[in-house]
Amino acid sequence: MDFDAMFNAQLGALKEEGNYRIFAELERRCGAFPKARSHDADTPDEVTVWCSNDYLGMGQNDHIRQVMKDTVDQCGTGAGGTRNISGTNKYHVALERELADLHGKDSALLFTSGYVSNWAALGTLGARLPDAVILSDELNHASMIEGIRHSRAQKRIWKHNDPEDLDRQLATLPANAPKIVAFESVYSMDGDICPMKEIVEVAEKHGAMTYLDEVHAVGLYGPRGGGVSEREGLADRITLIEGTLGKAYGCMGGYITGSAAMCDFVRSFSSGFIFTTALPPAVAAAAQASVAYLKDSRAERDAQRDRVAYLRAQLDRRGIPHMDNPSHIIPVMIKDPVKCRMLADILMQDWGIYVQPINYPTVPKGTERLRFTPGPLHSYDDIDHLVEALGVLWKQCAIAHAVA
Amino acid sequence: MDFDAMFNAQLGALKEEGNYRIFAELERRCGAFPKARSHDADTPDEVTVWCSNDYLGMGQNDHIRQVMKDTVDQCGTGAGGTRNISGTNKYHVALERELADLHGKDSALLFTSGYVSNWAALGTLGARLPDAVILSDELNHASMIEGIRHSRAQKRIWKHNDPEDLDRQLATLPANAPKIVAFESVYSMDGDICPMKEIVEVAEKHGAMTYLDEVHAVGLYGPRGGGVSEREGLADRITLIEGTLGKAYGCMGGYITGSAAMCDFVRSFSSGFIFTTALPPAVAAAAQASVAYLKDSRAERDAQRDRVAYLRAQLDRRGIPHMDNPSHIIPVMIKDPVKCRMLADILMQDWGIYVQPINYPTVPKGTERLRFTPGPLHSYDDIDHLVEALGVLWKQCAIAHAVA
Repeated sequence: MDFDAMFNAQLGALKEEGNYRIFAELERRCGAFPKARSHDADTPDEVTVWCSNDYLGMGQNDHIRQVMKDTVDQCGTGAGGTRNISGTNKYHVALERELADLHGKDSALLFTSGYVSNWAALGTLGARLPDAVILSDELNHASMIEGIRHSRAQKRIWKHNDPEDLDRQLATLPANAPKIVAFESVYSMDGDICPMKEIVEVAEKHGAMTYLDEVHAVGLYGPRGGGVSEREGLADRITLIEGTLGKAYGCMGGYITGSAAMCDFVRSFSSGFIFTTALPPAVAAAAQASVAYLKDSRAERDAQRDRVAYLRAQLDRRGIPHMDNPSHIIPVMIKDPVKCRMLADILMQDWGIYVQPINYPTVPKGTERLRFTPGPLHSYDDIDHLVEALGVLWKQCAIAHAVA
Repeated sequence: MDFDAMFNAQLGALKEEGNYRIFAELERRCGAFPKARSHDADTPDEVTVWCSNDYLGMGQNDHIRQVMKDTVDQCGTGAGGTRNISGTNKYHVALERELADLHGKDSALLFTSGYVSNWAALGTLGARLPDAVILSDELNHASMIEGIRHSRAQKRIWKHNDPEDLDRQLATLPANAPKIVAFESVYSMDGDICPMKEIVEVAEKHGAMTYLDEVHAVGLYGPRGGGVSEREGLADRITLIEGTLGKAYGCMGGYITGSAAMCDFVRSFSSGFIFTTALPPAVAAAAQASVAYLKDSRAERDAQRDRVAYLRAQLDRRGIPHMDNPSHIIPVMIKDPVKCRMLADILMQDWGIYVQPINYPTVPKGTERLRFTPGPLHSYDDIDHLVEALGVLWKQCAIAHAVA
């Protein structure tokens, strides 16, 4: 059987519709963030990265790097086993304590990624709570969707950020069924923020557990970086807060926090937690240092907010439409996969501006976009240069200027 | 609704049956492997680790550590994004080339873990090849089982390491259905090795794709560490070889290798690959250095084999039963979860020997065991000390001496 022919047929269809992905090969360079060396042909040697999830540039922070290197020398390059079989290092335990404290919870549980934490936690809760129903915001991330699917629990989709629809749907469910309301604080593709208080109140009214994904908010929102739930003073009313160490904290890994019983439950029954090698101790130590650092330091968050506001103002001044939202994510809608890729290519090749085209399946077809994430390390000159480039392209390409 | 009560009820049942897991909190120390500091109460300060999957001690290798630290300083602590959105670094690309070369394949694709690589690759192949049937060895790892389950493809379980049963089952399937034969080379809990040539021939006869998990073999078997498939000269007849960077290579991450079309297919359609932050460049660089190192250096493999043979011989001399197998894994069967935990506790507390009890769900109930993985860094004295401890315990505990 010619398997390659079968693969190529489906890849061909993807190329046909403009959704085939080409990865930019970069070399980020410490001390020069957000600049990176580009290793692709037809691009300048040095480009400015405009779509990183290392939102605060913590990945090049001297202190965090030093902690990572010291721990490599102390404990080695890897964990050497699963958490159960020789892989638990004191740095995993310390990081879990740091994360529980960040969200004011009893316990935390580390995973190898945010994806795995959502998939494993929702998968386990949905599968092992008898007759559970998971109520999922319609724009939840792929990792939550896969976790829910994996659990084979009953699933209800509620309208995006609509507590009234959630309320209506919860009201139709049997009182004695365990209900899990799954949602995010910051939705990364539109950059909108959920009406958290209203959602929590609806869930409480129906005795539902709340499962909150804060991956695009931890480190960035709240006085100590505890996310939108900290900023809104709602963390103690949310059953489970999930986050990542791979975005604002500049490292890798995911986690959940909540009651000791809940974390122990997921720890004890989740295949995706049990049967996998633990994070390298050096990554755990660096992540802990980063979480601790951003509990104290507000400078990075303040500078990020300043750059976000400046970019928005400059885009407005040039008449370049961008989605209005209250977060640090600035989407510019293109609404066509081929044009989106073309614009990104021109920005990269002619202007040294790297912004990955965001196409299906990351966003629905017809909502393709460029998505900018200004951070504290972008200079005003960087921003002016970006806006200049977009202004020129906007004129050249005659793309519709209507706000999405 | 009292969710904690529901969690505690299930945790209570787990404790009741002796399958509740307690993680040993360790601090591995470079230069002292396989010794580690223990951070648990009632244990000696220093213990010898006897159950690590860092099989060759590469985690403390000076060269690999130096590469990891240098890359932290060069590129930072994290990747900063998914592979598609700003997260591809030149070290990921270089590692993929190194891995393709290791197995003599066109391409490779990196994942955040071996678990995710199996789950995502089997999930994607099974779901997207129309009418696919996955034929899975009955002892395949949880990550493969979950991937197959996730794919919702038709699944057939064949008897462990039994090519004849595989042949019979393949013969019953329609000729035009895409068939995937999924199996492992070294099964980590029994330490047995599959009859690879026979399995490959059966698969070829029926036009089936072969999916081979070599996570407990890469770095350890074959002249360049390419696994059992390299040792047997069969790599070019296997469609997909999956491996890990978190065991013999001492780092973290998983991968698949195979045809360019197949890797591109999984890259393009797999949720678990697409929607997750890439490995830190420093981890990728360290892993590449480790793979390259073990392509050239046989000293670690030779020393491991020597220690494995010595431990087996000493166990035989003391009449301590252990499973006969052709690999580096030495299981000593206990067949009771409570006794298994008790023996492990005594070894840790009284002898400074750390071996995690292997209980359900890692192995079937009734097959609980201690599982020893001697490596090049265990001294003959370490081994003598272990055998002395086991000998004393065997007498004290009056555990059945029959070979499992």
